[in-house]
Amino acid sequence: MTTRDDLALAHRLADAAGAAIRPFFRARYDLEFKSDKSPVTEADKAAEAAIRAILEKERPRDGIIGEEYGTTREDAERVWVLDPIDGTRAFIAGRPIFGTLIALMQAGWPTVGIIDQPVTGERWAGMTGQPTTFNGTAVITRACRALDQAIVASTAPQAFPGCTAEHFSRLAGQCRDTIWGGDCYNYGLVASGHVDIVVEAGLKLYDVAALVPVVEGAGGRMCDWSGDPLTADSDGQVIALGDPARLDDVLEALAEGHHQHG
Amino acid sequence: MTTRDDLALAHRLADAAGAAIRPFFRARYDLEFKSDKSPVTEADKAAEAAIRAILEKERPRDGIIGEEYGTTREDAERVWVLDPIDGTRAFIAGRPIFGTLIALMQAGWPTVGIIDQPVTGERWAGMTGQPTTFNGTAVITRACRALDQAIVASTAPQAFPGCTAEHFSRLAGQCRDTIWGGDCYNYGLVASGHVDIVVEAGLKLYDVAALVPVVEGAGGRMCDWSGDPLTADSDGQVIALGDPARLDDVLEALAEGHHQHG
Repeated sequence: MTTRDDLALAHRLADAAGAAIRPFFRARYDLEFKSDKSPVTEADKAAEAAIRAILEKERPRDGIIGEEYGTTREDAERVWVLDPIDGTRAFIAGRPIFGTLIALMQAGWPTVGIIDQPVTGERWAGMTGQPTTFNGTAVITRACRALDQAIVASTAPQAFPGCTAEHFSRLAGQCRDTIWGGDCYNYGLVASGHVDIVVEAGLKLYDVAALVPVVEGAGGRMCDWSGDPLTADSDGQVIALGDPARLDDVLEALAEGHHQHG
Repeated sequence: MTTRDDLALAHRLADAAGAAIRPFFRARYDLEFKSDKSPVTEADKAAEAAIRAILEKERPRDGIIGEEYGTTREDAERVWVLDPIDGTRAFIAGRPIFGTLIALMQAGWPTVGIIDQPVTGERWAGMTGQPTTFNGTAVITRACRALDQAIVASTAPQAFPGCTAEHFSRLAGQCRDTIWGGDCYNYGLVASGHVDIVVEAGLKLYDVAALVPVVEGAGGRMCDWSGDPLTADSDGQVIALGDPARLDDVLEALAEGHHQHG
């Protein structure tokens, strides 16, 4: 089985998720809240169920880690990591910049990733060793000569636990502009060269796995706040850089926040 | 001249602005920074120029107040108020949730307003005494029984000057969810019944005028942080409510922030 087969399957999974999600967008649906107060809708569940139905049929030995329906065969060599709606709050509010995240992890590393926006019909797809595509066309990140030229994005200030908000503020103060909201869509915009930096905290494996092949296949870099590669055991602190040359600047700015306030 | 003629003209102005903006979206363009460090692009200028060209030809006696090209005949009884791209930072970052704002003020009050998203092809249109429409179909705001059921939206925490950030935080802490980013698009989502509350500060007349007919024509309410109607002389503190019954709750929450921190 080649990785290209996996990418083709990932596209079909995203198609199925999108078909499940679209009827619920700006419509009426059941809404629940998890123990951490995060919302989950019928659309999240329908989309993950649609993906799992295909995987169970076509890849019965692969593992699955999904935000809504938990873990199946997580020790398999190949594990699909699913967030059917990343940005459920944005989805609920009717914003067309949430996304479906689909990743394939092999031996613990994400080798295929898709960020799909099913309302606008936008899809970023990444695969180890291949250029990332946006709706089928290769994209690359942009150069960023210095932090004061950078647009930094992050979903929500309240998503930074404890003193990490101060660390982010220190970085944001050195960047040209900070934009809020956006969830996974921000990482697609990094891949396409419109946003320079995304910094977030508190992310789960299913929030992150699909982003790595997309951002890195476009020439960017993803790592944690120490500059180390993201793993399944990372602490949820994430940096995405369009221009890997800015890594030390970002780490230094985040660390300054730490020394002063941490 | 009837107000319906004005609304038809406003739609044509939005069409012209959208045609001017779309070629620049996610493309290369000149970028400048104003004295307040806010960005302005070729797209902002081209869109406002396209609108002004139509107005100068068809309504040579009407006044114009525009974000990019200033004020013409501001003492006219009828004044068009223009923000060619509200959410320029979102536009620059490649997000399709910025908007073109077009208002007609008559005797100092906005009687026609359009929020247009030219990439996704979404348009909210409001006119005094008529139901607000979204892409031609009437929309209404939704009921909100209590703040703890509410989604509150605001574009950026750094946009709250001074202690107003504390006031907002007090309100947000009482709401079910807070979402960030969005600019004028948030107010359209209030009109369509997907978002309950928008609270912002530091807005200019051209940021606000078009929103009032859209939100109020859908059954909502717009006012300042004292609950007073917005005027050309307002201080830039804005509340939009889908359910006007929540006004006292919102004012009280914002005032608590004031007493504790102000």
